[in-house]
Amino acid sequence: MSKDFHTAVKERRSIYGISKESPISDEKIQEIIDFSVLYTPTAFNSQSGRVVLLLGKHHDKLWDFTKEALRKIVDAESFPQTEEKINSFQSGYGTVLFFEDQNVVKGLQEKFPSYKENFPLWSEQASGILQYIVWTSLELEGLGATLQHYNGLIDDDVQKEWKTPENWKLIAQMPFGKPTGPAGEKDFQPLDERIKVYK
Amino acid sequence: MSKDFHTAVKERRSIYGISKESPISDEKIQEIIDFSVLYTPTAFNSQSGRVVLLLGKHHDKLWDFTKEALRKIVDAESFPQTEEKINSFQSGYGTVLFFEDQNVVKGLQEKFPSYKENFPLWSEQASGILQYIVWTSLELEGLGATLQHYNGLIDDDVQKEWKTPENWKLIAQMPFGKPTGPAGEKDFQPLDERIKVYK
Repeated sequence: MSKDFHTAVKERRSIYGISKESPISDEKIQEIIDFSVLYTPTAFNSQSGRVVLLLGKHHDKLWDFTKEALRKIVDAESFPQTEEKINSFQSGYGTVLFFEDQNVVKGLQEKFPSYKENFPLWSEQASGILQYIVWTSLELEGLGATLQHYNGLIDDDVQKEWKTPENWKLIAQMPFGKPTGPAGEKDFQPLDERIKVYK
Repeated sequence: MSKDFHTAVKERRSIYGISKESPISDEKIQEIIDFSVLYTPTAFNSQSGRVVLLLGKHHDKLWDFTKEALRKIVDAESFPQTEEKINSFQSGYGTVLFFEDQNVVKGLQEKFPSYKENFPLWSEQASGILQYIVWTSLELEGLGATLQHYNGLIDDDVQKEWKTPENWKLIAQMPFGKPTGPAGEKDFQPLDERIKVYK
């Protein structure tokens, strides 16, 4: 859709209630991923971002993996609440998995050793931008999304199931679907404590 | 200006040639900063981003600091080239300094110890998004910008001169001004090696 940049930025929100419907075709969702990966800026134009798009049974399987991984570490009493949360993500239409290619990061570290410590941070920053462009683009097409972080817990399952290279580091998971409810309230902190202007 | 989201994403580029003019007022530049800081998403809505906007003599001073810091570490033979580069940033109208408030990050780490290692990374990702929204917004208003990283070298000067709190960690510097030339060529890597779709 053709909302202007600032309206799109303003209206992007975390949408927790999502269903197994999509107002747009799978091809259009793929186009969004392609566009976002293509135009995300990266340090030294290193293009370190990688994406796996999971739809249908693949999406369901991701959240099954997550549920089983959590079952092992969450105490039995709290688990029903955890399960309910994971089910709410599983209720969606698909999930975008965001990765950063660590071979790209290492390559830059070897080529430019004086910035060695910075490349992993710039890679994280670039991933943030990629996540953001995908998120806003999905919202513009009438899809609701949130950003989840079960990496650390599901990395091996993901790598095994979808044959992602070992050097792809899982950064975030974005379940999405047709919104079943509005975004929640959002608090904003006063800007005068966050911004200084000198002129 | 009211370009649609995807056109804005597509047209944002690194603009190295910038002049000491601005097609928009200082108040409008401040509005862009306010808007971007306000609507940048952050983990747990922690709102960790901080910005210092430097215009006029303050902008010039930043790049003088950078030049002097570099003079101490770059060998004399290479320095003219380094100086020329810094002069090109100093030729701009202003600079946006991006920080992340480490007290916010620490606060989250204490409150949610099981995510301890993730909060610094999520803060970097959020900073990437903030940088991106400012960058694209400046471009939409006819300003050219690049992202520079002399943090590590100029942090003490910045803190002393503009009285930024010790807990504000400098992440990036964005010099901007009216473009004096177009963006360079940009290479794109094949998407089929960066994206996988399972449906």
